[in-house]
Amino acid sequence: MKILVAPDKLKDSLTALEAAAAIADGARRAMPDVQVDLCPLSDGGEGFVQVLVEAHGGSLRETDVSGPLGDTVRAVWCMLPDGTAVLESAEAIGLARVPTARRDPTRATSFGLGQLVRAALDDGARCIVMGLGGSATNDGGIGLAVALGANLTPACALHPAGSDLARLVGVDRTRIDPRLAEVALVVATDVTSPLCGPRGAAQVFAPQKGATSAQVAALDAGLAHYAAVLGDPGTQPGDGAAGGLGYGLRVLCGARVTSGAGLVLDAVSFDARLADADLVITAEGRIDGQSAEGKVVGEVCRRAAHHGVAVVALAGALRGDLTPLYEAGLTACFAIQDGPRDEDEARARAAASLTATTTNLVRLVQSGRVARRSNR
Amino acid sequence: MKILVAPDKLKDSLTALEAAAAIADGARRAMPDVQVDLCPLSDGGEGFVQVLVEAHGGSLRETDVSGPLGDTVRAVWCMLPDGTAVLESAEAIGLARVPTARRDPTRATSFGLGQLVRAALDDGARCIVMGLGGSATNDGGIGLAVALGANLTPACALHPAGSDLARLVGVDRTRIDPRLAEVALVVATDVTSPLCGPRGAAQVFAPQKGATSAQVAALDAGLAHYAAVLGDPGTQPGDGAAGGLGYGLRVLCGARVTSGAGLVLDAVSFDARLADADLVITAEGRIDGQSAEGKVVGEVCRRAAHHGVAVVALAGALRGDLTPLYEAGLTACFAIQDGPRDEDEARARAAASLTATTTNLVRLVQSGRVARRSNR
Repeated sequence: MKILVAPDKLKDSLTALEAAAAIADGARRAMPDVQVDLCPLSDGGEGFVQVLVEAHGGSLRETDVSGPLGDTVRAVWCMLPDGTAVLESAEAIGLARVPTARRDPTRATSFGLGQLVRAALDDGARCIVMGLGGSATNDGGIGLAVALGANLTPACALHPAGSDLARLVGVDRTRIDPRLAEVALVVATDVTSPLCGPRGAAQVFAPQKGATSAQVAALDAGLAHYAAVLGDPGTQPGDGAAGGLGYGLRVLCGARVTSGAGLVLDAVSFDARLADADLVITAEGRIDGQSAEGKVVGEVCRRAAHHGVAVVALAGALRGDLTPLYEAGLTACFAIQDGPRDEDEARARAAASLTATTTNLVRLVQSGRVARRSNR
Repeated sequence: MKILVAPDKLKDSLTALEAAAAIADGARRAMPDVQVDLCPLSDGGEGFVQVLVEAHGGSLRETDVSGPLGDTVRAVWCMLPDGTAVLESAEAIGLARVPTARRDPTRATSFGLGQLVRAALDDGARCIVMGLGGSATNDGGIGLAVALGANLTPACALHPAGSDLARLVGVDRTRIDPRLAEVALVVATDVTSPLCGPRGAAQVFAPQKGATSAQVAALDAGLAHYAAVLGDPGTQPGDGAAGGLGYGLRVLCGARVTSGAGLVLDAVSFDARLADADLVITAEGRIDGQSAEGKVVGEVCRRAAHHGVAVVALAGALRGDLTPLYEAGLTACFAIQDGPRDEDEARARAAASLTATTTNLVRLVQSGRVARRSNR
């Protein structure tokens, strides 16, 4: 039996690679001669760089840039052997970089991510793939644009932020680094939100970045004003990703915005690896009905179903109505908890729980195969 | 596909019948045309009467008896159509009958259970099957013996209890109800402990019945003294059940002590029902390595394995090393939690969680069958 082990990260507890190793361990405990194909995945959020460098090799690089509140952070990115630079917004301007008490999307800037793009250009990148997700910002990408050479009218602080959007009159793109026009810029995200409004960047994501409700309203109005200034309504899917960075990258930098999960699954040749798999095991920290849209689990289900391969999803938590996932092709899903546990215990035990649950599910699948062979 | 649904109770949340209904519901959601054979089980503890009356019909009866601390309680028992009376120690002298603050196995008596035996004899029982488990007592059965007519030397209080054992000189059985000698008395329990010592009734069970460590030592010494008085060392498996009731029933009343799970599985014709099952689903509140010994889940695994049928166990909590259960025949087990939850939440959600987990496992099993049929 061959199992394609294709998890996302389990947020706050396991990277995708760690999750894949724990699942593989569980499969081997059930069935020592199982063939396991490790395929850690990402939807563009945290772990995006690690997953792609794991799949393609290449060299990890570190660059010091401005963090979301202007203090210097060291961001890891990678250059793949084909000259593709892989960047991750969370590395430069991630919410996890900011202590909870200091989180403020009105003040946070995407400037550092623009510096990271410059670093990639300096190193000769021919293509830049940027995973968006987990950002601390809500600046529509003006920080990044300024880092790349754009001029704002009126001139803002060195590191423009969300609160600068409302008084923006114009964005002069003539000084943007000309090398950017020579490279393919691809933005990978699991977010399909528009820029503004009830489903937009501020209203959906700013509260978890530390905004008060008054700030959320001001940020949303700022993004709407920004869209009017740039003359593009911001209604493309993904415009609302990472505090409007999706929009800024698309409109100001000519980026192509795409599904992070789809991009990653293509990059790791997921369909080819499905072809001779008997079972796919995927995983994510939390799985709900929305996981069918843009998330790793949903994309894995769709492709597995297309190839007629059973797919089991494991999760730290299963919540809500999972009908959309079953419709996408999910065979079955199990939470990995071994009993009542609080969040911290559950997190600490995630790898062991993933291993144990996998052992049991492979035992069950295997019993069916044995029954099938002997035609009981 | 035919599924034999054979759960124990989930202690403190679902009866075996409720658990079976929740599992059946989950199976039908996965596969509307599934054949489900509902087979709620018991190991002799709480739910024993309900399970047997469910399987065989017969009439439920209620008798007022002395509770563990002497206050009157109404105990439910049943008379099966063949004249077998089914009693349950927990109904008359159950720990659940005593508020936590009042629990005290030095004072609790098995007297009320003896009254229940008398009631069964009064109603013409030809056989008495008594499920032991969940008792509040540690009196070695002297309370029950006195209720049935035995005389203790020196004479004790009306309702002798654990603290009376140490000063016992003799037990006169000549006045024990003579009808008892005419019926088959069968004691069903999941406990294989001896009467005394480190694995005995007091040291293993008295702490959870409210005994302090000094009381545990005194109760253990009392039971050892009692064994010396009766001239039987109390080393038979089950002698330590229900605070030594197993011993008292065996030595003073000539009872045959047997595995509760084995007795119940026989009583519900479990093996015959296995014969055309494709899958067995069992369940219990908590499953651990010890579940292989004397518990419903272990017995179900052994019999399912003997018939070559896959068996999946679902549990509120999976704890410790489950190797003994796999060796007994368990195919796979899953905890039913849908994510981090505290004990109370988990209990309140038990039925829904059991249903959801079953749906997923039947979907998985079904996918294998579909694959088998189409020979993908």
